[in-house]
Amino acid sequence: MQDEASVRIEIISVGNELLIGKVVNTNASWMAKRATSLGTTVRRITVISDDVEEISTAVREAIKRKPRFIITTGGLGPTFDDKTLEGLAKALKQNLKVNEKALGMVKKRYEEYRKQGGTIDPELTAPRVKMATIPENAKPLHNPVGTAPAAIMNLRGTVLIALPGVPSEMEAIFEESIVPMLKKEAGGIVFFEASIFADSIMESTLAPLIDKVMHDNACVYIKSHPKSKENTPHIELHFSTTAKDEQTAKERIGKAIAQLSALTEANSGKIRTKVIR
Amino acid sequence: MQDEASVRIEIISVGNELLIGKVVNTNASWMAKRATSLGTTVRRITVISDDVEEISTAVREAIKRKPRFIITTGGLGPTFDDKTLEGLAKALKQNLKVNEKALGMVKKRYEEYRKQGGTIDPELTAPRVKMATIPENAKPLHNPVGTAPAAIMNLRGTVLIALPGVPSEMEAIFEESIVPMLKKEAGGIVFFEASIFADSIMESTLAPLIDKVMHDNACVYIKSHPKSKENTPHIELHFSTTAKDEQTAKERIGKAIAQLSALTEANSGKIRTKVIR
Repeated sequence: MQDEASVRIEIISVGNELLIGKVVNTNASWMAKRATSLGTTVRRITVISDDVEEISTAVREAIKRKPRFIITTGGLGPTFDDKTLEGLAKALKQNLKVNEKALGMVKKRYEEYRKQGGTIDPELTAPRVKMATIPENAKPLHNPVGTAPAAIMNLRGTVLIALPGVPSEMEAIFEESIVPMLKKEAGGIVFFEASIFADSIMESTLAPLIDKVMHDNACVYIKSHPKSKENTPHIELHFSTTAKDEQTAKERIGKAIAQLSALTEANSGKIRTKVIR
Repeated sequence: MQDEASVRIEIISVGNELLIGKVVNTNASWMAKRATSLGTTVRRITVISDDVEEISTAVREAIKRKPRFIITTGGLGPTFDDKTLEGLAKALKQNLKVNEKALGMVKKRYEEYRKQGGTIDPELTAPRVKMATIPENAKPLHNPVGTAPAAIMNLRGTVLIALPGVPSEMEAIFEESIVPMLKKEAGGIVFFEASIFADSIMESTLAPLIDKVMHDNACVYIKSHPKSKENTPHIELHFSTTAKDEQTAKERIGKAIAQLSALTEANSGKIRTKVIR
């Protein structure tokens, strides 16, 4: 999190359903976990409504912060409220154009459906052509499980990718097309995390002990997560680091865990559970 | 969502755990649902790391968009990585000061713990005083279930509130102190939503039908959520509206549901399940 040299990512989640609390943003946490595991750093997640102006503004703001990747989810489907590509076009001052390659992808998918189902009309109606209408400088990305292609474009120093919001489609495209890019950019950096649980010691007592261990272990980040009330303490202590290889990462985390465990026990705390991930 | 006259809210979630995908942001969706149910509109959710600069930047950006409320969660505890109040102070160019009322709240809580537990030292150590150290123009808000008080301050036209990240504490303070404010601001406006499920009709076929029903029912927002693949369609159709009373809202939604159900069935779709909330 603190490593400024790391590959920075911003996620923009588009969808009214996220802003009315109808849907929990598991897409963002799934991507954040996956991207972190590959050694990259998610710096910001922004959730906005299905509104061209809001999408355009959020994308422009993100571009100004110069992350290596901006990944949007949601708003690529056939209905009127799928407005992400329109928002991107506006942000980038580009026209929306029917992309022939994207149209081929959509067409192929409906023909497959027809072969499988029989009664489905594969005609390229306006809502279907809409899914292939992307900003003029964008390229489509193959969607292995759904109809709407994703879109990718290279800006100066930033790669902008628009993924669908249906989780199975988002995940499939992420694995197929984005994971290889992130791996390449991260250059073999690994993220490693582990948790232990401390009982019978208050978070306010733990605070200076955590400070000391972080001071003595420069590249390890420790965060306490209270799982109960301050006076009946059950606290998760989460250790994480980013390193050039797994052994270095594990050694660092192991050393910090040993030191904080000893300090906790010296202050009447109990280390009850150890979870290593 | 489209109503510009509505009371606008922004949520800022602070915490590395959200950006590494360790924790799903259920706090934001809980608040979004609760605020929406009271007739207010959440316009943006921003997730950032435990970093003073990031917090300060995100808060300044939110203030510029002039929402009526900005609510932050996370980062109010006793440890070094609880940096939200420092971030707010920086954003507002205010000093951090020990607030006597807040200190009284923290002190009272530890004395209660001592009475309940026996062995707990109620001494106001530095990490505990930290929880009562808030921006100089802020006031503390009572925390009914935890130790760290929340903080509130009035800016020009915007109320800025900092809540803890522990869900039980966040929810308790929200119910006790924020719900009455939102109710008053919303002035009796109600939000109403309902869903029906359509089978055997593809989203690309539904798209123009939804357009028509939204056109004919000006204040109703309809969003389709595919729950399966395009060729074996099972689609949730979510209807929502904001109205001055519940009866108006229910009548509007009922009329739109009836029209879209009829159109769907006329296009070989099946309305299988009806869920009214």
